[in-house]
Amino acid sequence: MLVVVAYDVNTETPQGRRRLRQVAKTCKKYGQRVQNSVFECSVTPSDFLTLKHDLHKLADLESDSLRFYNLGANYSNRIEHMGVQRHLPDDSVMMV
Amino acid sequence: MLVVVAYDVNTETPQGRRRLRQVAKTCKKYGQRVQNSVFECSVTPSDFLTLKHDLHKLADLESDSLRFYNLGANYSNRIEHMGVQRHLPDDSVMMV
Repeated sequence: MLVVVAYDVNTETPQGRRRLRQVAKTCKKYGQRVQNSVFECSVTPSDFLTLKHDLHKLADLESDSLRFYNLGANYSNRIEHMGVQRHLPDDSVMMV
Repeated sequence: MLVVVAYDVNTETPQGRRRLRQVAKTCKKYGQRVQNSVFECSVTPSDFLTLKHDLHKLADLESDSLRFYNLGANYSNRIEHMGVQRHLPDDSVMMV
């Protein structure tokens, strides 16, 4: 299944930038970065639990926000993109 | 249906910050901001077309990235949250 991880952190501080780098590194084990603070991770349900556990340890839960969107297994028609892009999860993402 | 709009713009420039404000204002007609550059919009298929049309006009497609995730009508079990939050789309979002 594909899980979108959106991470909100104040990157004006070195600590915030460090956390963002750590979150990105963790998410990249499972997928790729599609925006500055958005990652698309291809995971099993077990991977997803591990990912959340790892991110829970990295994040500053008093100041950061992590939001997970589970797009399920058949996700290609759920994603559309406009403008520049860093990556695509596969060839079937619709351009609008 | 619920559509997540993730917007990536360089807010180091006044123009970028202006575009982000305009995108937020447009998305807020349909839903709410849940992170700095993530909006959750409750839309009909017709609204969604209008929203994309409006955002297409606002964005600088040479430098900005807009990504749309359609969570469908039964979306509450597709969303999980960790850490601080600005808003919730409804009472049924799972906290992890």
